[in-house]
Parts: sequence; C-alpha cells; structure tokens
Amino acid sequence: MSRLLQDAVSELSKLPGIGHRTALRLAMHLLRMPPESVADMTRSIDRFRNEVKYCACCNNLSDDTICPICSDDERDRTTICVVEQVADVLSIENTRQYKGLYHVLGGVISPMQGISPSDLKIDLLCQRIAAGDVREVIIAISTSVEGETTLFYLMNRLREYSGVKVTSIARGIGFGDELEYVDELTITHALRNRREIE
Amino acid sequence: MSRLLQDAVSELSKLPGIGHRTALRLAMHLLRMPPESVADMTRSIDRFRNEVKYCACCNNLSDDTICPICSDDERDRTTICVVEQVADVLSIENTRQYKGLYHVLGGVISPMQGISPSDLKIDLLCQRIAAGDVREVIIAISTSVEGETTLFYLMNRLREYSGVKVTSIARGIGFGDELEYVDELTITHALRNRREIE
Repeated sequence: MSRLLQDAVSELSKLPGIGHRTALRLAMHLLRMPPESVADMTRSIDRFRNEVKYCACCNNLSDDTICPICSDDERDRTTICVVEQVADVLSIENTRQYKGLYHVLGGVISPMQGISPSDLKIDLLCQRIAAGDVREVIIAISTSVEGETTLFYLMNRLREYSGVKVTSIARGIGFGDELEYVDELTITHALRNRREIE
Repeated sequence: MSRLLQDAVSELSKLPGIGHRTALRLAMHLLRMPPESVADMTRSIDRFRNEVKYCACCNNLSDDTICPICSDDERDRTTICVVEQVADVLSIENTRQYKGLYHVLGGVISPMQGISPSDLKIDLLCQRIAAGDVREVIIAISTSVEGETTLFYLMNRLREYSGVKVTSIARGIGFGDELEYVDELTITHALRNRREIE
C-alpha cells in the first residue's frame, strides 16, 4: 500500500466517526477532486484551526476579538442566553427567534471528567452581568445530570445580582437529547416557554 | 457565525457522506485537537493529493513510478489479478492469500456514464501480457451489468494470447450471508458451481 495513501487514511481515521474504510473512501474521493479544491479544503481547515479566536465577551468562536453577535447594535443587550458550546449558538441562531446575546460556557460541570466551575467561563459571565445592562439570563444547557448540576451552580452564583431574572428554556427538549441535534421548532418552543427559576 | 468556521464547514461538507451537521461536529473536533495534529493531517492530505502516482505497470496507487507490489521479486509474476479500483487491491491484500500481481482498470465499461474501454487501462494490461511471463489472468470485477460487460470485453481482448488462462473469481454465497436474503442470480451461480464435499 502506498505510504502516502496510508498516511492520509490514518490521519483521516483520527476524526470522530471515521473508521478505516470511510477514511479510504474519503481518500479515493480526494483523488477525484481537482488538486486546487483539495488545497482549498486543507487551507480552510488550517486557517480555521490557527486563526479562529474566542470572543473576549461571550466566548463564542469569532474571527475577531469580539464576535459579530456581541458587536451587533441591533441585538437586545439586556438578555444573555447561556449555552454549553459553540454549536448550541448556531442551533439557536438558526431559529431566527432570539435577538439577545449569548454566553458560551465551554462545557458543563462534570466531576467525572474533572471539569470544575473554574474550567468554564462562569466568572466572565458574572463580570458581564455585574457591568449592568443585563435584565435576564436564559439558561439553555442540556438536561443531563451534569447540565442540571451546572444549572444549580449558576443559579447560586447569579442570585447575588438582584434585578436580573434567571430563566431556563422550557422542558420541551427531551431528557438525553443534545441541543446540538434538536430541530429548530423544538428549540423555538423551548425558548418561548422559558420559565423563571424559583 | 465565524467566517473561518463557515469556510471550514462548507469545505468539509464537500466530502461524500458528510453533511452540514457532521462537518460542524468535525470542525469542533479539530478545535480540540492540538494545532500540530491538525497541521499533520492537512499536510498528509495535501501530500497524498499532490505526490501520489499511478504505478506505470499496474495502475495501482504508488509513491514511486513502479509500486511496491510490482517491484517485489517475491511475488508470483505469472499471475495478474484484474480489479476495478485501488480499494479492491487493498481488500485482496488484506486476505494475505494472494501472491501474484495486480492490474487496476480504474473503473468498468459504462455507456450510461460515458466510460468506454479506452478510458480504462486495458491496453496497458494487454501490453503486460504480450511481454510474456503471464500464465493466468484472474478477473475480479463486480457482478453488475457494467462489470459483466467489462468481463466479456476483456475475455474477447485476451483471447488472442493463447497460453494465458483467463479465470474469474468464484461467485457464491458469502460467509455469514443468509440464503434468505441473497439474490437469485448469486444463488443460481452458487448452485451451478457446487462442489462435492470431501
């Protein structure tokens, strides 16, 4: 077997969900693509990995120091929607129903995986709220055990900011469902039916 | 959405079997990989696309002008196994049962897709046989209508080389296949080619 092919297949196999056979199929497809298209693909991957930043305000992926959502004057700056990960922002944005800002935690509290509150962007969230302006924090994290733990931790932390309403998206999202894979309609409903946490 | 992310996702979506969501998941995985690992991956893809060659003898993928199989003195140079594509060589090599050489046609004759015999490496195969040495040509191409057409075309072309035996790999029921779900043509072949149990 060609070592060049072998290398390409073994590198592609490192991607999640791509086994040896799929990697081989992808490699064969790459051979049928024009060399410039393959170069465009690898260049965009390299640029993405090396140049993408995390927004200094909301921790979303961004091309600049501040992401387009945080720097958009049209957005409602009194509302922050707290999500686990970047993909969740995209899922909510796809509904076109939400006009507030976001805050990407970068995960959920998980003692099993050694993820403590200090590993998440919770202090940054508190700083944003402490700066004023914010009236409502919508917590939109998954309903797993870790998600619930994170929700309670956040509620405790946010209690000190009187005047800020803390809500949670409605339980329209099934237990065990990952926000990333939920359809837009369910997310829309869950956002509309958010309830204040007592 | 970050334009860098958008670009990476849209490039990854060009790969077969990778939709928008999967591409997004892959992109997120790339972010969690060390930058050097991502660079290794894109470099191996670029090198594969730009540097891999087709063996001048058998048309298999190769790092050099002649592939390792064709240049291996240990292999039986009297037998050539004719296959459609590179992946088929790998499948047969994985059995570790075949010690002859290969010939990769690069497809099958398909008037529907505009693939004529001249688009395949059939002349190259004839040249190899005409050079002497070869005693047997094993045809190992798929049993589709196009595969059968190619088989008959090859048989006609190879008829002129008297002294060269042309064989086809056995058609039958695969190990693990349930007879209930096997197509009639395969069962017909398997019945006709039945063997006495010793």
